[in-house]
Amino acid sequence: MFNRVTIIGLGLIGGSLGLAVRTTKSAQQVVGYDLGKGVSDRARRAGAIDQSFQALADAVRGAELVILATPVGAMRALLQAIAPVLTPGTVVTDVASTKAQVINWAEEFLPANTSFVGGHPMAGKEVSGVEAADASIFKNRIYCLTPTPRTNPAAINKVSTLVEAIGARVRFLEPAEHDGQVASVSHLPFLASIALVNTVAEGSSWGDASLLAANGFRDISRLAAGSPEMYRDICLTNSEAITRWLDAYITTLQSLRERVAIHDKDLSETFARAQQERQQWQVSQERIES
Amino acid sequence: MFNRVTIIGLGLIGGSLGLAVRTTKSAQQVVGYDLGKGVSDRARRAGAIDQSFQALADAVRGAELVILATPVGAMRALLQAIAPVLTPGTVVTDVASTKAQVINWAEEFLPANTSFVGGHPMAGKEVSGVEAADASIFKNRIYCLTPTPRTNPAAINKVSTLVEAIGARVRFLEPAEHDGQVASVSHLPFLASIALVNTVAEGSSWGDASLLAANGFRDISRLAAGSPEMYRDICLTNSEAITRWLDAYITTLQSLRERVAIHDKDLSETFARAQQERQQWQVSQERIES
Repeated sequence: MFNRVTIIGLGLIGGSLGLAVRTTKSAQQVVGYDLGKGVSDRARRAGAIDQSFQALADAVRGAELVILATPVGAMRALLQAIAPVLTPGTVVTDVASTKAQVINWAEEFLPANTSFVGGHPMAGKEVSGVEAADASIFKNRIYCLTPTPRTNPAAINKVSTLVEAIGARVRFLEPAEHDGQVASVSHLPFLASIALVNTVAEGSSWGDASLLAANGFRDISRLAAGSPEMYRDICLTNSEAITRWLDAYITTLQSLRERVAIHDKDLSETFARAQQERQQWQVSQERIES
Repeated sequence: MFNRVTIIGLGLIGGSLGLAVRTTKSAQQVVGYDLGKGVSDRARRAGAIDQSFQALADAVRGAELVILATPVGAMRALLQAIAPVLTPGTVVTDVASTKAQVINWAEEFLPANTSFVGGHPMAGKEVSGVEAADASIFKNRIYCLTPTPRTNPAAINKVSTLVEAIGARVRFLEPAEHDGQVASVSHLPFLASIALVNTVAEGSSWGDASLLAANGFRDISRLAAGSPEMYRDICLTNSEAITRWLDAYITTLQSLRERVAIHDKDLSETFARAQQERQQWQVSQERIES
């Protein structure tokens, strides 16, 4: 059990972590900090934290574990801001969608008598904000931890113990490995969805065509509804891996385009391969979640 | 009210049309034909048809309205097969996802004393087969009708009356216009989904990355689970419009790729445009469905 756990950033993930830590009694006290007006109060009312602070320094002082749950774009400044006020021995972790860049910042700014363990829970919801916080979103979900050779083993143990306590499954990955993998299954998908919506919405027939858009369009465009700032921050901090996957996607589409143009009857084999991969993924996903 | 309505092809759409015609008492008799072993019996037990026939000629003889609800790949042969046995005055319609090609076949093969009205209900479900048939899937949905200058006005009236009787909303479009619009909101989406699944599944890290795939991947890959044969038939009969939209999509992706590569901070504006278009679409869609 932790003494004080501090959560910086009380949105969906930060709030859900607070609820999960409190309901599993994994810490004696959960305190929070959020820049947004009234957010800390709402988090307290939602049961996500025991106490909030007006000043960042007060929130992190004396914490055994600090969880950074802000957008990745705020991480650099945040690490700089907390560095001088962290109590020696404090373990810091984050929940950002990209890891290599955040870890570089942590190694650059945090004092040597603290430890940083990069983290990324594979959990979320379509809605955001502490009002949507839910302790169960981590249940049976994979929670990536990305220690480096320089990460303190005791700190890794602390964070992985907490991850398991809230019902998630720890998966250890190297930061670059993590970033390449999420670029394929998470970042490429949102860019594909955004590009699709912008492509069809820029067409001269969109006003009429939008009336014919049904369930298929709903599914493929859902990711385009996500936060533009979060997506931008992800692109800025995972540019290389995302560019690589976009290149591969464009190559696949160009090949499909040529085959559609020549009325290739064997397209059904390519389509069947995708169908099979998707079905296999779904079966294994159901096994993970059960 | 129609006398006899014949439905050829008793899958999800054919079966649902049968149920809808019968529950709204829009015909005195609904008869059906399906090549699949036991399908006709299951359709009768599901209440989708009153009677089935072993021979296609018997099924269409004497029908006031024949609805072709087979995959588009079977339409050419089907139109050739029913042409010599249709009763003079019969109206024929179809439910295929592409219209220009089917209408060309109909004008080529059907006798002058019958009429053809192209149709496309914007309704569906993730599951297929007559067991999933449901009269309510047409409720408040758009149902495209694509008459040409050569289409008999009385036949157009008959089909549109039936479409309204089952709760759907008629939308008249020219065939090429229809095909261009569905290429953007329906065919490009399934190709984008298939290309995405095949791209990431061909990556060397897929075994590990697939474990990190979560809700976003689930949404964007859902269309890839659809029927490879249906998708192929759509590509073969709507090649030109699909190729055009794939080109536009690839151009959008290439521009995004360049901007990710140079760490363009203004990407959030492009992402915000997609978010806004998606939200506007959803609002108008909810208005249509209510």
